[in-house]
Amino acid sequence: MNTVKAYGTQHKDDNLAEMQITRRDVEPNDVKIKITYCGICHSDIHTARNDWDNTLYPSVPGHEIIGTVLQVGNEVSDINIGDLVGVGCMVDSCKECSACQNHLEQFCEKGMTLTYNSPDVHSGGHTFGGYSEEITVDRHFVLRVPKNLDQKAVAPLLCAGITTYSPLKHWNIKKGDKIGVIGLGGLGHMGIKFARAMGAHVVMITTSPGKAKDAQLLGAHEVLISKNTTEMEQHKGSFDFLLNTVPVKHDVNPYMSLLKIDATMVMVGALEPLEPMHGANLIIGRKRIAGSLIGGIKETQEMLDFCGEHNIVSDIELIDINNINEAYERITKADVKYRFVIDMESLRN
Amino acid sequence: MNTVKAYGTQHKDDNLAEMQITRRDVEPNDVKIKITYCGICHSDIHTARNDWDNTLYPSVPGHEIIGTVLQVGNEVSDINIGDLVGVGCMVDSCKECSACQNHLEQFCEKGMTLTYNSPDVHSGGHTFGGYSEEITVDRHFVLRVPKNLDQKAVAPLLCAGITTYSPLKHWNIKKGDKIGVIGLGGLGHMGIKFARAMGAHVVMITTSPGKAKDAQLLGAHEVLISKNTTEMEQHKGSFDFLLNTVPVKHDVNPYMSLLKIDATMVMVGALEPLEPMHGANLIIGRKRIAGSLIGGIKETQEMLDFCGEHNIVSDIELIDINNINEAYERITKADVKYRFVIDMESLRN
Repeated sequence: MNTVKAYGTQHKDDNLAEMQITRRDVEPNDVKIKITYCGICHSDIHTARNDWDNTLYPSVPGHEIIGTVLQVGNEVSDINIGDLVGVGCMVDSCKECSACQNHLEQFCEKGMTLTYNSPDVHSGGHTFGGYSEEITVDRHFVLRVPKNLDQKAVAPLLCAGITTYSPLKHWNIKKGDKIGVIGLGGLGHMGIKFARAMGAHVVMITTSPGKAKDAQLLGAHEVLISKNTTEMEQHKGSFDFLLNTVPVKHDVNPYMSLLKIDATMVMVGALEPLEPMHGANLIIGRKRIAGSLIGGIKETQEMLDFCGEHNIVSDIELIDINNINEAYERITKADVKYRFVIDMESLRN
Repeated sequence: MNTVKAYGTQHKDDNLAEMQITRRDVEPNDVKIKITYCGICHSDIHTARNDWDNTLYPSVPGHEIIGTVLQVGNEVSDINIGDLVGVGCMVDSCKECSACQNHLEQFCEKGMTLTYNSPDVHSGGHTFGGYSEEITVDRHFVLRVPKNLDQKAVAPLLCAGITTYSPLKHWNIKKGDKIGVIGLGGLGHMGIKFARAMGAHVVMITTSPGKAKDAQLLGAHEVLISKNTTEMEQHKGSFDFLLNTVPVKHDVNPYMSLLKIDATMVMVGALEPLEPMHGANLIIGRKRIAGSLIGGIKETQEMLDFCGEHNIVSDIELIDINNINEAYERITKADVKYRFVIDMESLRN
């Protein structure tokens, strides 16, 4: 066990502050990582503030982790000291159930171990995330980061990236498909980039006319203002797929009318009850609504490799660790384009 | 034009009573049918009573029509006088749009013509349904009825049958799949029969323990009482597919937990807003909810042929036309096993 510096909170009403945590000694299948950058996900804030009423304190969030390898266990043969690696939302799963065998560790029947706030099978305590100098992780959950990418802007790919890439791949988005990305935030901006790189005709669907220009700079071919009923009527029944990144309770009914017959809208943001959906909006046109949760480890690696090939990274704002509480306030006001990333060197100084 | 007897209503508050309507002369592609039996669908009641606020009066419901051919137009070569035929929910569509070309006339881009209560392209008025001595229908919308089946019990197949057969086929239900049919009424009892004939392991899911025995007689292998949380927990994450036939607003969240990863629940009954669905119930397990509306004409013929092969008909209670108002009352109390069918001979007497 070694003690390292981290940033976290002891209580839901506290600001985040520097603290000490322990990391386990390197086990045979482990990789010990010096964290260079860590993205800030909205889930970090929900956890720090106990919004989901399940937070284990002390809480150290962070699951968009980039770093370099400090040490590897003696059974790790394919990762070396000095390699550039990433860790996302998971650090353990049973590896034996049907879901794990099918590369869907996020749906492990025994429950995945989240990177933070999960019972830790190694320590007996709970997991601490990436707002920390170091982390030690089972090699299976360590991703390789393409060297041609700006590593600080890769960090958000480990959550926001895979969350949007996975449904686009799973629902087989292809060249020429008309794809709508609903909501322009940390998830939505990645959705635009991926759908564009996959060859789709990308429509940014937003309530805010002010976001139109940014959406086009990110790669959207068109912008549809969902409050404009005339525009909505023009696009009715025309979409092959909708990626709904709205992170809060909302009314999905107007979006359902945009889908073609047999087409699907996938929810990736709203982990809460939606406004009542009208049965007829599913029945007329045999439409579908589905969900998607991050992605398995194999697919996360595939996503990073895809980003390497297509030069895709997140648009970020880099901050020092001592500005994190201000960053949290700005995220709750949706005031960031599009993801904060912490320069973890600021914790070491 | 010829005048025929029918049963319908002039006003939402009236009981149904005998009236006269006109049917068009036989056009080149038409088939004129002497109606022998007509099933009663819950939609008939909603229309007669203007529950959906769209009823065109006078209203003659009925879209589960069985009869024998009286006359055919001079371009109809594959149906002959005396043939046993059926007509379901549709009597016209544009035949040219992408949906019609793909055998999905129910999603015709110009709107299908419903068997009753739709603008009628032939008369300029609106369509009258099967509570009538005769009907004249474009041959494309006329189905052949297998001769080995009890024709009065075939009538409900034209709506309740195809509504449940279509999603089971479209979602590729196969031998060994674990299928749940939610709700035991006119739709649910057909769902059990079809899923069983397709080789699935069929679980009837109901709120009513009193329906268990009937469900098993209809072919269900198991009965799951959805109010029993212990039983629901035992079946969690185990279903390949759920066919939800509940015809009214309800809470779908408990059923979502029954689905396997990537599995689908299809709604066929509730044409109204559902209780709020929790986003996490879609996202965790990448689950899906979809809708399905009757089926195309080609698939409806396939369904009737399947019924002929497997000796499947609806369980019915035969009534005379002058008992229809009482039957409506009983349907609203769910007091029928499982479909009323009108002996149309009673209208001719």
